[in-house]
Amino acid sequence: MKEKILQIFKDANGDFVSGESLSKALNCSRTAIWKHIEELREEGYTFEAVRRSGYRLISSPDIPSQVEVQTGLQAKELGREIHYFGAIDSTQHKAHELAKGGAPHGTVIIADQQAGGKGRMGRPWHSPAGTGIWMSILLRPELPLYRCPQLTLLAAVAVVQAIRETTGVRAEIKWPNDILVEQKKLCGILTELNAETDQINYLIIGIGMNVNTEDFPSELRDIATSLRIQVGTPVKRIPLIQRILENLEKLYKLYIEYGFSPIKSLWEAHANTIGKRVVLRQLHGSLEGLAIGINEEGTLLVRKDNGEIEKVYSADIENASSPST
Amino acid sequence: MKEKILQIFKDANGDFVSGESLSKALNCSRTAIWKHIEELREEGYTFEAVRRSGYRLISSPDIPSQVEVQTGLQAKELGREIHYFGAIDSTQHKAHELAKGGAPHGTVIIADQQAGGKGRMGRPWHSPAGTGIWMSILLRPELPLYRCPQLTLLAAVAVVQAIRETTGVRAEIKWPNDILVEQKKLCGILTELNAETDQINYLIIGIGMNVNTEDFPSELRDIATSLRIQVGTPVKRIPLIQRILENLEKLYKLYIEYGFSPIKSLWEAHANTIGKRVVLRQLHGSLEGLAIGINEEGTLLVRKDNGEIEKVYSADIENASSPST
Repeated sequence: MKEKILQIFKDANGDFVSGESLSKALNCSRTAIWKHIEELREEGYTFEAVRRSGYRLISSPDIPSQVEVQTGLQAKELGREIHYFGAIDSTQHKAHELAKGGAPHGTVIIADQQAGGKGRMGRPWHSPAGTGIWMSILLRPELPLYRCPQLTLLAAVAVVQAIRETTGVRAEIKWPNDILVEQKKLCGILTELNAETDQINYLIIGIGMNVNTEDFPSELRDIATSLRIQVGTPVKRIPLIQRILENLEKLYKLYIEYGFSPIKSLWEAHANTIGKRVVLRQLHGSLEGLAIGINEEGTLLVRKDNGEIEKVYSADIENASSPST
Repeated sequence: MKEKILQIFKDANGDFVSGESLSKALNCSRTAIWKHIEELREEGYTFEAVRRSGYRLISSPDIPSQVEVQTGLQAKELGREIHYFGAIDSTQHKAHELAKGGAPHGTVIIADQQAGGKGRMGRPWHSPAGTGIWMSILLRPELPLYRCPQLTLLAAVAVVQAIRETTGVRAEIKWPNDILVEQKKLCGILTELNAETDQINYLIIGIGMNVNTEDFPSELRDIATSLRIQVGTPVKRIPLIQRILENLEKLYKLYIEYGFSPIKSLWEAHANTIGKRVVLRQLHGSLEGLAIGINEEGTLLVRKDNGEIEKVYSADIENASSPST
């Protein structure tokens, strides 16, 4: 109900909406309408109320709810269905649940706070209230399995572009999909999938971005940053989310139509790993060498000191000469 | 409790076990023991009861329960944990559930009957009581995603070998993993996985084999067969299950140590697709050509009439000159 009222105000685009037309449209009493508007005020929305004219929405808080994100969103498929949660254990977990229930391609799950945010390889992800973008995007690509890593790289490009377009911050991608500013982590991307060996059932791209974090817990302070720390003022989450969805949709279409080549070029243009000496920590030991590029599959190529070229599918990367990021 | 009693009789290896030692070992009354033995008799177990000596297990029914499958099983990792169900919706479904709960590599789920057996691409799988092997095997390989299809091919080899070793029936593999006799389907293999783009969380190999089916529903009669139909007498499921697990463990070790090459040779030796003209039905249209082999990734290679070689990741295959199997 509250969402419906909000939608009507959004559709009115700053004009007055009478209490009578609201109660008619929603088939409830004017007292009920008034109660919901009071609730919206408590969430940070401001309204002007004028006798005989009704209510006018003056300003909205930076809460990435379904209505807020969909208002003005230019993407057609991504975000057509949005599930917003004030607090949740993990948007990835919820995305798996919805995917199994048949949620369509492009479904988006957003939370203001995660109690059990997930990073790569089951690691925890610090996701406090109101400060970040904690979002999962459900895709149903008709692609063979080996192409999945390419979609992770594609998502990283979409996010880096969105950051630059909305804040001017020039973030870089550390292979495969960490997003860094000044060697500190701003955003992580976790791609999970459920598949048969010859058919992807669904794929979930999880994005965790530190937006308005002013200070990090001591164990993260040296390795994490936020957009607010970078630009010095609060950054609005909603336009950033919209831009991510729009870019992701655009790049995904490009990818489906033309394959990985155009994405590869974009990824390389934003990557900070290529051309550097790196140390790769893998499940069974580590490896040092020169990161010379990615191949057409999206696999990292590293030239070892003996000249051999190693294909790297999974690793934690450090620059050989600098501390861990 | 019944399983524990059965285990004691299996361990006794045909010798007498006294009622007293049973009630001591299991810490319950001799009346309770007697009741459980009666239950086992109802399931098809036969016992000899001799005053003063106790009970002796004479014969066991062909029920692939945990105790039965583990007795004499030569595999070390596969089948160390077995979950048996008289009836279940789907062993694949249960396997996903157990995998998420942390079940170890090698966990096996077996059912006597499935109400909602699953085939490839969400298709149903006919799984009546007592007649087949409806089994799912949980693996936790540390491999990149692109290698998953190879594991499906590996499973097909393990199954074909087990069929030949226990019954003499020479079954063939239709790419990627249907097992046929005289162009009729004897067994299907469904591999599902849950992964991050750079790490497989778990993989489930589902095996559905028609063993003692005497007759099929009319819509399957022309395209399905069973081992019983092939050999003319009932076939025991338990030794067949054991052989599948043993072969799969052996081939998996070979694969982890030496890679896909030795598996590829074995698969090709059992395949009926290679060297034939095939029609491939895919999501978006179909393709005809000569199946010339599989490559080092396990992908099917088809030479089209214009000479181009197409890599095939997913399709339903028919021989160009014969009806669909």
